Order: sequence, then C-alpha cells, then structure tokens
Amino acid sequence: MEAKKYLKNYAQKADSVLDEFFAEKKKEAQAISPIAAGMIDRYRQFMVGGKKLRGAEIKLGYELCGKRAGKEVIKASTSIEIIHSFLLMHDDFMDQDDLRRGQPTSHKQYEKGHTPHFGLSMAVDTGDLGMFLAYEMLIGTHIPPKQKTAAWKILNETIIEVAYGQALDLHYESRKKVIEEDVLRVHTHKTATYTVTAPLQMGAVLGGASKQKLQALEKFGRPVGIAFQLRDDELGMFSDEKTLGKPADSDLKEGKNTLLFVKALELGDKKQKKFIKYAHGNSNLTVKEVEKVRHIIIDTGALACSQKLGRKLVEKGKKFVPQITKDSRHQETLYSLADFIIERES
Amino acid sequence: MEAKKYLKNYAQKADSVLDEFFAEKKKEAQAISPIAAGMIDRYRQFMVGGKKLRGAEIKLGYELCGKRAGKEVIKASTSIEIIHSFLLMHDDFMDQDDLRRGQPTSHKQYEKGHTPHFGLSMAVDTGDLGMFLAYEMLIGTHIPPKQKTAAWKILNETIIEVAYGQALDLHYESRKKVIEEDVLRVHTHKTATYTVTAPLQMGAVLGGASKQKLQALEKFGRPVGIAFQLRDDELGMFSDEKTLGKPADSDLKEGKNTLLFVKALELGDKKQKKFIKYAHGNSNLTVKEVEKVRHIIIDTGALACSQKLGRKLVEKGKKFVPQITKDSRHQETLYSLADFIIERES
Repeated sequence: MEAKKYLKNYAQKADSVLDEFFAEKKKEAQAISPIAAGMIDRYRQFMVGGKKLRGAEIKLGYELCGKRAGKEVIKASTSIEIIHSFLLMHDDFMDQDDLRRGQPTSHKQYEKGHTPHFGLSMAVDTGDLGMFLAYEMLIGTHIPPKQKTAAWKILNETIIEVAYGQALDLHYESRKKVIEEDVLRVHTHKTATYTVTAPLQMGAVLGGASKQKLQALEKFGRPVGIAFQLRDDELGMFSDEKTLGKPADSDLKEGKNTLLFVKALELGDKKQKKFIKYAHGNSNLTVKEVEKVRHIIIDTGALACSQKLGRKLVEKGKKFVPQITKDSRHQETLYSLADFIIERES
Repeated sequence: MEAKKYLKNYAQKADSVLDEFFAEKKKEAQAISPIAAGMIDRYRQFMVGGKKLRGAEIKLGYELCGKRAGKEVIKASTSIEIIHSFLLMHDDFMDQDDLRRGQPTSHKQYEKGHTPHFGLSMAVDTGDLGMFLAYEMLIGTHIPPKQKTAAWKILNETIIEVAYGQALDLHYESRKKVIEEDVLRVHTHKTATYTVTAPLQMGAVLGGASKQKLQALEKFGRPVGIAFQLRDDELGMFSDEKTLGKPADSDLKEGKNTLLFVKALELGDKKQKKFIKYAHGNSNLTVKEVEKVRHIIIDTGALACSQKLGRKLVEKGKKFVPQITKDSRHQETLYSLADFIIERES
C-alpha cells in the first residue's frame, strides 16, 4: 500500500483507541482532582495532528509477521505515539520553543496566569505523566505477557538511546565547531532507532517475528531513520510556518546542528561562511537575513548534499526489504514508506 | 526484624546490584559517547546515601509471601530506587533547590561551565533517562513475564498518581489559602501510595500474593504512607542541614504546603498568624526569623497536631498487619517499619 494511505488509515484507528483510553484516564484523574483531569485533556489535545508514523510502523511490523492487526495491537501501537508527545513536551522546554503543531507549546500553555517557572514545571510534570500513560496503554492490552514484555524492552531501550541522543544534542549546541559525524551521531541515537527500527521491531515482536526478521528490520531502519531526520532538518529550514506548525526559522535561530549548516560552513566561500556563523544561533535575525541563509544553503550545495545523502540512505535501507518479507504487498508498503520519509512535505 | 536493621541489610544488597547494573549501562553508554557515560556516573552518584526504604519494602513484600528474596528480586526491587532519583531530580528542578543529600542538585551540577537553562535541560533529560533505566533494571530480571508485568503495572500506575500529586502540589503553592484537606490530598497522591503501598504490593505480586493480601497491604500502606510525609515535613522544619542534606529552612522559604503551616495559621493568635503569613514562601528570611517560625509552630500546637495525626495514622495502619501475614516475624518487621516511619530522624 502507498505509505500516505497507510498512515491515513492508521491515524483514524489510532485516534479512536486514543480517545477511548484518554476518556477512561480522565475519569480516573477526575476522581483525584480537576487539575489532574485538566492534564489529561491537555495531553490528548497536544497529540492532535501528528503524522503518527511510529504507531503505524508498529502496526506494519506486526503485519509483516503475516497477521492482521486487531484492536489490541492498535492499542499497543499507540503507546509510542503517547511517548512521542512526552518527548516533544520536554524537547520544547529544552529548546525554549513557543509553538508546536500550530498551538502554544505545553510550557507556554501552562504559564498563562502563572510564572514561567510554573509553566516549565507543569510541562515537565505533564511530560512525565505522559510517559507513564504510554506504558499504561501498553500494559492494558490483551497481549500475552511474553510478547508484551518483549515490546516493552525494545521501547524502553530505545528511549534510553533517545535520552543519550538528546544529551549529545544539548552538548553539541554549545560547542564551537560541530562536524558531519557529530550531526549524524545525534541523528542516529536521538531519531533513527526511535523513528523507524524500534517501532517496526516492536510490532514484529508482538507478532512473534524471528531473529532474522528483527535484524533485517534494523538494517532497513537505521539508514532510513537517519534520512528521516535529514528531511526533518530540510523542512525545518525550507518549509513554512503553517505546514511546520512552528516558525520556519527556529532551527536556525536556536542554533540547531544540522547537516545543512555544517555543509554550508564547509562548502561556502569566506563571505558565506561568515554570514552563516553570524546567523546560526542568532535569535534576532530579520526575515531578510533568514532568507539569505536559505540562499546560502542552496547556493553552496549544502541542501543538495543533505538530499543526496538522504536518498542514498533510503536506497541503502531498501536493499534489505527482501530480507524482511517475501510478501510483495508488504514489500511495496516498505518501499513506499522509505520514499515517503525523504519526500514528505511535513 | 527491627526496621532500621532491615533497611541497613537491604541497602548493602541493593548497592551491590546497582553497582553491577550501572557498570554495565556505563559500558553501553560509553559506546555512544563519553557524554552518555558521564550521565550514568552522575545518576549513580546521585543515588548514594538514600534510605532505600521503598526498595526494602519490595523485598519485604516478596518475603511476606513466604519466600526468600534472591538476587533477581533484589534487582527488581532496586527499580523503584532508580525511579526515586528520577523523581527527585525533576522535583529539585521544580522546587529550584540547590542541595540534595549534601550534594549540589542535578541541575546545579550540570550548569557548571554552561547556562542555567542547560543545567535544567540536562537535569530533566537525565531524569528521563533514569526513569527508563529503572524499567531496564526490572525488564532485565529473570522473573516470569506474568509476575514481572504485574509489578510493572503497579509501579507504572503509582508514578502516574505521583505525577498528579506533583501537579496538585505545584498548583496549591500558588494558592492563597490551603486547607488541611488539600495538604493531605497531595500527601496521599504524591507520597503515600508510592512510598508504602506500591512497593509492598510490587514485592507481593512478584511473590504471587493473593488479592486479599494486596488489599490488606493497601489498608496498611495508605495511612502509614501519609504519616511518612507528615514526618518528612516535620524533619524539613526541625532537623538540621547536615542530617537533611539540604537547608533546614527550604520548605519554609519555598512556601511548601505542610500541615505545620496550615495548623499554625489555624491555631495561632493574630500576631503569630501574621508572622507565618509573612514568612511562608519568603526566601529572604533571616536565621532568627526562621527560628521564630519554629517557635510559633511549637507554641501554637501545630507540631503536636502533626505528630498526633502521624501516630494515629500509623496505629490505624498497624491494625491491618494481622490481615497481611500470620507469620510473627514478618508482623514484627511491619510494626517496626510503621513506627520507624514516624520516629525516624532522617
């Protein structure tokens, strides 16, 4: 199936089980306090509008074992979507972002009528809550404990890797010189496993996959996962606020380390390099200056470099598809998914 | 066995499995980056010096099923101790505390040579890491998936309750008037379940306990758990910095809502009330003023009120001990544990 269609179908099913789950959690929270119930509402609201790529991959990973994903698997698959919102909430606080998916970020919402520190505290606490809600969803599924524990193990190890990746990202941001290797190291640990390999493997262990299949999924997922982040960085620089749901210059102004900046600094002439250095991490840039950075990224060939590497990585991953499954329909979905990851516009 | 002795014995065993676990995790982290390995070191260091009450209760809960706790159960029991450090790290950030267990708090450690926001970000990220490390410990134990999943469920639901309790605490801190009921609501959700009921129940489900035993543990744990926090608040006001590992006036200066302040405001004369209102949440108090608040809390009978309620709750809990176990040695340990919780000096 075409990836876009697959994601759309999945999102509908996922939203339905998520609504049910959050309604139940809200009842429990209400019994404690309206404050607790409010957290549940905000969390659910925060989840609206994502691509739900990772959840869909859990479903796909399960189907790769030749099984039809019923409601319990859909429920289990949404655990990673719930976790994803927790990661975004904490990320937004660390990046000091104001907008996410077109809404004020969690800490910005909570600070209304309170202090900024209260906003940050509540965003972190709500994120913490969400992480455990994610596991609550997984725990509550009617899946045999052995498979459930196996999926739990993968998800848990993955988030540990994400936490390391996040720390690297935070540290590198305050470094003077960051090289391609550093950028790809962050992409690998913060994004790649978590975005492609882990969800596919989670679905696969729920479906009782063989070791060989799990290994093949990793060989597919690792390069494709890095390509996902390269595309994210391209969109973060060249898309528009409406599509992104946040300012299209925030990566630049926050001084995010992306391949685009590393390559522009490597390939640019003296003047271009100087301007990139001036602009990267400068929160006071004018619209014109941001536009100038875009031009430099294009003119130096930095954008082409990123796109070329993304395509190369996706093609590398695709080679392993025949090792994952012999079923031509599933192969088609995996190929389409890999392409979607670097061709998507949001 | 006397509770103090039980805790001391346990702490030794726990430290040994924790050292082993963190050494292994450090190896994995080192393969990613020295930054990741550094996080593991700091996390382990942060854990040094706690009472390890909750971990010990997991062991005790298991033994209440008439079984001897071997290494795998000890390993599983330390998961709550790992989680505890995550909660403290995030708590310290929310409370803006500088000291914990005699060391700089996590965000204070990380901000050295960086910005305060970097310190906060790394403390939150390290806390996030710790939470998943806790589950990693539990996942890695050789315990049948069914029992493991049951323990996971209890721990997970408990931390959800803690997150709600934390949110109530944060909200009440900015309220003008807080009553006894509010204080006890926070204590119930933020502390009581997590500190007594849940660990005992976790151990019990690992040991295959009956529903009746689990219910009896809750009846014991709920009042005793609230009493734990009352004692914590008393120590937070009347102990010294060396014993507490943090300033003995921080609850007062941060405007923590404790029964001591609620009762002093309720029972004090006009002058006393005025002074408490002036002092509570005032970070610029002199040593003399802090001392004056202590006198008011004693003179108004607020301290006696808290101690009396603590004793009453502990006695209430103890009544259920015979429902938990018929074994007189275990009964003795539970009685001693309940007494320890309100008699402890740290």
